[in-house]
Amino acid sequence: MPEIVRTRVAIVGAGPAGLLLSHLLAAAGIDSIVIDSRTREQIEQTIRAGILEQGTVEVLDALDEFSRARTVGHRHDGIELRFAGAGHRIDFASLVGRGVWLYPQHEALKDLIAARIAAGADLRFGVTAQRVEGAASDRPRVFATGADGRALEIDADFVVGADGSHSVVRAAVTGSQTGGYFREYPFAWFGILCEAPPSATELIYSNSPNGFALISQRSATVQRMYFQCDPEVDPESYTEEQLWHELQSRVPGTTLNEGPIFQRDVLRFRSFVAHSLRTGRAALVGDAAHTVPPTGAKGMNLAVADVLVLERALRALLLENDERLIDAYHDTALHRIWKAQHFSWWMTSMLHVAPDASDFDRLRQLGELQTVVESEAGRRYLAEAYTGWPLEGRA
Amino acid sequence: MPEIVRTRVAIVGAGPAGLLLSHLLAAAGIDSIVIDSRTREQIEQTIRAGILEQGTVEVLDALDEFSRARTVGHRHDGIELRFAGAGHRIDFASLVGRGVWLYPQHEALKDLIAARIAAGADLRFGVTAQRVEGAASDRPRVFATGADGRALEIDADFVVGADGSHSVVRAAVTGSQTGGYFREYPFAWFGILCEAPPSATELIYSNSPNGFALISQRSATVQRMYFQCDPEVDPESYTEEQLWHELQSRVPGTTLNEGPIFQRDVLRFRSFVAHSLRTGRAALVGDAAHTVPPTGAKGMNLAVADVLVLERALRALLLENDERLIDAYHDTALHRIWKAQHFSWWMTSMLHVAPDASDFDRLRQLGELQTVVESEAGRRYLAEAYTGWPLEGRA
Repeated sequence: MPEIVRTRVAIVGAGPAGLLLSHLLAAAGIDSIVIDSRTREQIEQTIRAGILEQGTVEVLDALDEFSRARTVGHRHDGIELRFAGAGHRIDFASLVGRGVWLYPQHEALKDLIAARIAAGADLRFGVTAQRVEGAASDRPRVFATGADGRALEIDADFVVGADGSHSVVRAAVTGSQTGGYFREYPFAWFGILCEAPPSATELIYSNSPNGFALISQRSATVQRMYFQCDPEVDPESYTEEQLWHELQSRVPGTTLNEGPIFQRDVLRFRSFVAHSLRTGRAALVGDAAHTVPPTGAKGMNLAVADVLVLERALRALLLENDERLIDAYHDTALHRIWKAQHFSWWMTSMLHVAPDASDFDRLRQLGELQTVVESEAGRRYLAEAYTGWPLEGRA
Repeated sequence: MPEIVRTRVAIVGAGPAGLLLSHLLAAAGIDSIVIDSRTREQIEQTIRAGILEQGTVEVLDALDEFSRARTVGHRHDGIELRFAGAGHRIDFASLVGRGVWLYPQHEALKDLIAARIAAGADLRFGVTAQRVEGAASDRPRVFATGADGRALEIDADFVVGADGSHSVVRAAVTGSQTGGYFREYPFAWFGILCEAPPSATELIYSNSPNGFALISQRSATVQRMYFQCDPEVDPESYTEEQLWHELQSRVPGTTLNEGPIFQRDVLRFRSFVAHSLRTGRAALVGDAAHTVPPTGAKGMNLAVADVLVLERALRALLLENDERLIDAYHDTALHRIWKAQHFSWWMTSMLHVAPDASDFDRLRQLGELQTVVESEAGRRYLAEAYTGWPLEGRA
C-alpha cells in the first residue's frame, strides 16, 4: 500500500528553486511538500556556482536569521575583464549602484534547508519522483518511491518541477522528458578548488590567446578557478604543475597563489530551454526549465526569478481562484529566461576562444571587448545583466 | 616615353577617401595627385551606401559651399528596430545628442570632385595604376596607364592606396594583393530603387521570421529598400510583385508605398581587414584597407576616419619630418576598424536569420534584441556606434 499524502503544492526537487518556493508559499499560508531523490548531505555538499545577484540576496533575506549570504558571503562591487594584456574593471557600484555576492550555492542550500526544517515543513530526502499524472485536472498527483522502496503518492492542487536538468516532471509539462531548445558548445570549464588565499579580490574573466580563464574565490583559504578546456578531457590527466601552468598562462600580469588542489571537475556547457514551462496544474522552474552555460553566473539567479513569478501566480490561483497569472507564467518567465540565455551566450562567446575561430573572429572579439570597456553605456549594459535585471514585484 | 609627374602625395583612387585626403592635404599646403581608373561619370553615378555619421558630415563641412550633405541630405535622429511584431525606436538625439545624415555616397562624391576641381587639383580619371615601387625608400613611385594607353609615372614622397576592395596599392603594403583577415556571410542583400514616396521617415531595421529587411529612403520620390537573400540569387529572377511580397512580408505592421522598381542589385556580404595598413612610404585607407558588411552603414564613415588619422600623420612626416604618427598609423587606425568590424558583424548577426540558425539561435536573438531595447544603456551603446565614436582630433 502506498503512503498517500495531501498537500496544496507538491514540489519535486529540493534545490534552491524548490526550497525557496516552499518557503515563500508557507509565508502566504499555502502548504507544500518537497521531495528530492538525494540525501540532505548530498545536496549540502555538491559544489555549484557561487555568484548571487543583489536581487537574489534580497529574496533570501526572507529567510531572516537563516540566510548567511550577507554575513558569510562577500559582496563584490565589480569584475575585471582582461584581454590583450590589460585589465578593465566593470565597476558595478558606479554603473548601476548594485552588486553581487560571492556565496556558494551549497551554502545557500544549507540555509534554505535549515529554515524549512525550523518551520516544520514537510521536506523528504531520498524520495524519488517517478511520474506526474493528472496535470490537466484540478488534482494532479506525484508518484514517488522512498529510500526504503515504499511507494508515495502526493495528492496536490498543483505540481512544481524543480527537479533539475534531468527533471521527471518535465515530461508531464512538455509531453517529453527532453523537449526543448538546445545549444551545445565546443568547450568546457576545467574547475579546481585549491588551498591558497585568493589571488584577486574580485573575479577576473580573462580572454587570453590560450583560451578563457576565470579567477574566482571561495574563502580566505580556498580558491575556485576555471580554465577553458576540451569537453572530452579527463580531469585526472593533468598534473598539478600542468594545471597551474594552464591557469597562470591565461592571466598574464597576475601571479596566482598556488596551493594543493583538492578538487577538480569538468563542467560541460549547454544551453537549454523547455518548450513549455506549464501545462494545466504543473509547471517547471530552475534547471528543470532551462540550463545556461556558467559564464555570467545566471543559473541559480534565474531559478529564483522563476520562483518569484510562479509563487505570485500560485497565490492568485490557489487563494483567489484567479487563473490569469498562471496562464501568463510561461510567457512572463520566458521573457527573462531568453534575456539570460542571451547574456550567458554573449559572455561565453565574447570571452572564450572557439576551437574553429579564425584570425578574423579573434580580432573581432577583441574589438568587441574594446568597444564594451571604452563605453560607459557598454559597461553599464553588461553590469545591468550581471547584477540582475529587476525582479518580479521588486523593481 | 612615360609622362613623369612629381608630387608630394600620390593618391590612387578617387573615392571618398582619396578625394577627401587630397582636399585636407591641400589645406595643409601639401600637394597631391589623385588618379582613378574610372571615369568621372562612373564615379558619380555608382549607387553606394547613404548614411553618414555626424562626424563625417562635420568633416565634409571643410568643403564649404561644395558640401550639400546638410542641405540636400536629411538628418535622422533615430532608427527603428523591429522584431517580434513590434517597433522600437533608438532615439539618437536623447541617447547621444548626435544624429546621422541620409546622403548618398555618390552625391558626396560629386561634392568632393567639384571642390577639388574648383581648387585646381591634379585629378586624373581613366588612369589605371599598375603597381607601386620603392615603398621602402623616400621616393616611392606609382606606375600607371592613361585612357589613351600612355604610361604615367608619379614620383612622390608618399603613396596612398584609396583604391577600393580590389586595391593595386595593397600588394606594395601587405606583400600580396589579397593579404588580410576575411569573413564570409551566408546571405546577401537584395536592393531595389523604386519610384514612390518614403514609407517611413527613418530607417527601419526589421528582423522578421522571413529574414531581414531594411526600409530606407533616397528622396521625396525615390525609395531604397533591401531584403536578405541568398547570395547566389539572380536579381532578374524576381517579378516586381514577388519583390513587393518579400519586402511587405518582412515589415508586418507597415504598408510600404509601392512604385515602379527601376534598379535592382544583390550586395554580397564580406568582412575584410588587410594584414598591414602601411609599410614605409605607402599606406592604405578605406575599402583598400577593409570591407564591412552594410548593416550598420560603416563603410564610408570608416574611410573618413582612416583619412583623418593618415592626414595628420602625413603632415607630421612631410612638414616636420616627424615619423612617430606614421609609425603609429597601422595601430591607431586598426583600433577603430576592429570596433567597426565588430559593430557591423553584431548588427548583421543580430538582425539576419542565418540559414543554419536553430530555433534556439532564433529565440536567443530575439532575447538579445529585447535586452538592447529595454535598456537605456543598451540603446545608447548601439547609438554611440551607429552615430560614430569620436574622430581623431575631433573629440
